[in-house]
Amino acid sequence: MDYFTGVRQKRALEISELLKQAKTGQRVKVNGAVHTIRDMGTVAFVILRKREGLLQGVYEEGVADFRLKDIREAAAVEIEGVLVENEKAPNGIELRMEKVRILSEPTDEMLPLAIGKWKLNTSLEAKLNYRSIALRNLRERAKFRIQEGLVRSFRDFLYGQGFTEIHTPKIGAKGAEGGANIFKLDYFHRPAVLAQSPQFYKQMMVGVFDRVFETAPVFRAEKHNTKRHLNEYTSLDFEMGYIDGFEDIMAMETGYLQYAMEMLERDYENELRLLKITLPDVTRIPAVKFSEIKELVSRKYGHQMRNPFDLEPEEESLISRYAKEEWGSDFIFVTHYPSKKRPFYAMDDPEDTRYTLSFDLLFRGMEITTGGQRIHDYRMLTKKLEARGMTEEGMEQYLDTFRHGMPPHGGLGIGLERLTMKLVGEDNVRETTLFPRDLSRLEP
Amino acid sequence: MDYFTGVRQKRALEISELLKQAKTGQRVKVNGAVHTIRDMGTVAFVILRKREGLLQGVYEEGVADFRLKDIREAAAVEIEGVLVENEKAPNGIELRMEKVRILSEPTDEMLPLAIGKWKLNTSLEAKLNYRSIALRNLRERAKFRIQEGLVRSFRDFLYGQGFTEIHTPKIGAKGAEGGANIFKLDYFHRPAVLAQSPQFYKQMMVGVFDRVFETAPVFRAEKHNTKRHLNEYTSLDFEMGYIDGFEDIMAMETGYLQYAMEMLERDYENELRLLKITLPDVTRIPAVKFSEIKELVSRKYGHQMRNPFDLEPEEESLISRYAKEEWGSDFIFVTHYPSKKRPFYAMDDPEDTRYTLSFDLLFRGMEITTGGQRIHDYRMLTKKLEARGMTEEGMEQYLDTFRHGMPPHGGLGIGLERLTMKLVGEDNVRETTLFPRDLSRLEP
Repeated sequence: MDYFTGVRQKRALEISELLKQAKTGQRVKVNGAVHTIRDMGTVAFVILRKREGLLQGVYEEGVADFRLKDIREAAAVEIEGVLVENEKAPNGIELRMEKVRILSEPTDEMLPLAIGKWKLNTSLEAKLNYRSIALRNLRERAKFRIQEGLVRSFRDFLYGQGFTEIHTPKIGAKGAEGGANIFKLDYFHRPAVLAQSPQFYKQMMVGVFDRVFETAPVFRAEKHNTKRHLNEYTSLDFEMGYIDGFEDIMAMETGYLQYAMEMLERDYENELRLLKITLPDVTRIPAVKFSEIKELVSRKYGHQMRNPFDLEPEEESLISRYAKEEWGSDFIFVTHYPSKKRPFYAMDDPEDTRYTLSFDLLFRGMEITTGGQRIHDYRMLTKKLEARGMTEEGMEQYLDTFRHGMPPHGGLGIGLERLTMKLVGEDNVRETTLFPRDLSRLEP
Repeated sequence: MDYFTGVRQKRALEISELLKQAKTGQRVKVNGAVHTIRDMGTVAFVILRKREGLLQGVYEEGVADFRLKDIREAAAVEIEGVLVENEKAPNGIELRMEKVRILSEPTDEMLPLAIGKWKLNTSLEAKLNYRSIALRNLRERAKFRIQEGLVRSFRDFLYGQGFTEIHTPKIGAKGAEGGANIFKLDYFHRPAVLAQSPQFYKQMMVGVFDRVFETAPVFRAEKHNTKRHLNEYTSLDFEMGYIDGFEDIMAMETGYLQYAMEMLERDYENELRLLKITLPDVTRIPAVKFSEIKELVSRKYGHQMRNPFDLEPEEESLISRYAKEEWGSDFIFVTHYPSKKRPFYAMDDPEDTRYTLSFDLLFRGMEITTGGQRIHDYRMLTKKLEARGMTEEGMEQYLDTFRHGMPPHGGLGIGLERLTMKLVGEDNVRETTLFPRDLSRLEP
């Protein structure tokens, strides 16, 4: 019988430990993947890839007690050597290699992609086919560290604002938004669907916790193969009760974005530098009514409006351009969407019921959030259902919740992959999805 | 055009703000749900349910400018009044009510459950049927705050240990564990499955980030209707590279549990008190070999072993009893499970290949974690697949990853609902699942 008493201290050091604890001239142990080897004849550089970045190993015959050909690119190794300063090396340090221990060897001679290069010069298709290899490229993997920062700050910020985290089921009897884009499955001989959003659940939980959030996958059987659509994505959702108006939700999202940018600047500095990202200014975000901004954009850019009830991708792009030119903002809230394009639970504007107390947030030309106030009155909710010719079937428990009192509330959903995409400057959402699912892609 | 500049300060105060900022005699505004009303004749107590607990409102005719019958149980209200101390009231404060604003009214006269009672005396069935109402009971909702603490501390701890958070797809072409318990769906006329675990993906990502974790739903089409099985649950998964042995994984999990208990004690004090929870001691967790503990338990309790390759629920219970009696521990690692009961990617023990370098963690009689070291060598992996008569089909990209080098690694998966259940002292996992999915339950 053994006892476990907590995390084991490792003798092999990480880069931040080398920079903090180790001194020049000290003998240290590090491990990592052999990223690249550059043989210069009398000396060779063996670059290790570690989770915090690259570490340069210097190989010299006579100093090292092994042969250079003993180590191969893509091997996992542990190296013992002497730490020295070198301002030309990554992080200003390098390791004079003395001993090596091979932890694991590749069986293939060649990697399918040249991951050691600064930029992975290959097609998106190839990157996705060899996803687990492509992401070993430093810049490719950095995008997903940024993504971590965005979801991590979302949760941290909301914990601090009194929100409770919830986990709602992804298999259910009926979809929240209705419509055709629902994946169906057989659930022990009963028809079931995959959740398009946690909408109903988070609303029900407002009656319990006042403020709730969830960060989880959602599923949409969209038949669009575009640069902005995914069939499975991570949705950052929150819902809050006791709001004074739907402005509270936009204010909360602004607070989140401010918090996120601060966290990225502080904790993801390396990745920002690697990707040459300049974070957007989120001190203030302009908000304009749907009908108003359509008009403004159409006038300024001579754009012909086709659909008066929704925004086309081209219009989203023009609206963002307008916000940047007129108000210097990368973000813009578009408010008061037409009621007929919003789901039944959206609260109509009492001043003009053709519109809703709702909004989208556009970021650099693309919608990344949809949100708004919801109906909290049972009678108003069932009346709107009826007016739309919808059935209450499958929504009984959701609707029942409103019979027993619900505070005024609203919330939003943010598409994590889109937010990441726009932040890191990509133009295809697959670039910022670890393993994207689209019409043709179900693997890896 | 408006500008949003961040979170809006609310005039209505939360309980912690009342306790910190407000003074006795001060006029304040609060909102909340009317939890219960106790009319004593000359005076009435209107208990508000807020996210941080209960607040006692005192209604006296003449003091208040409204009639008591204007407010109903389950309504959402905003109350203005004078704050006074009262050591008998929750949190030692109460509000002399002066004005009320009704934010929202229930349409039904009666709640289906007596949520205002200390303990919700009703069947599990009723609680699940009226889930959004049942959870308004303070003790019911407290369980899910504890659950939040468990998942929140999991992430926080792992961020601190250099792990990267990942989001892997839940729809795929093939299940990770194989077997019959896979939900199938139609993905644009192609057969697809729901993920039983993020196993393959987190392993692939070890080659990228060294250490990764995910907290996400997994799906198992188990045909068991037991107290411990769910068809959808939240799995806390991590996977770490450059391990010196599978002991590193148990050490990391021990570290997590220590961190989690500290966070619960610090940040979830109210909920622990409400549920009368005594947190388990996790200073040290014993670890015993599978074959050894089977023997010890059989000898001590005169238990007849039936299945030499697996643990029956009764044995799990006896092993936990043994760990408590002999080593004073609520947790016990059972290590070196037989190879034939572990998946193909489990690393066999080089000293005795009938067993694996794997473990389960039992907590108060139940398995809550399965983990272990994985095979990182391509040839060893394909050989084991072959020996089991399995095909490589659908696993090409997973297997290819190993051709291009992978460090020694391992990881684990923790069932969040089970961990919560055992911590809060429930004996049915549905009690600690927000909206459980089982053989018969697909709603709400």
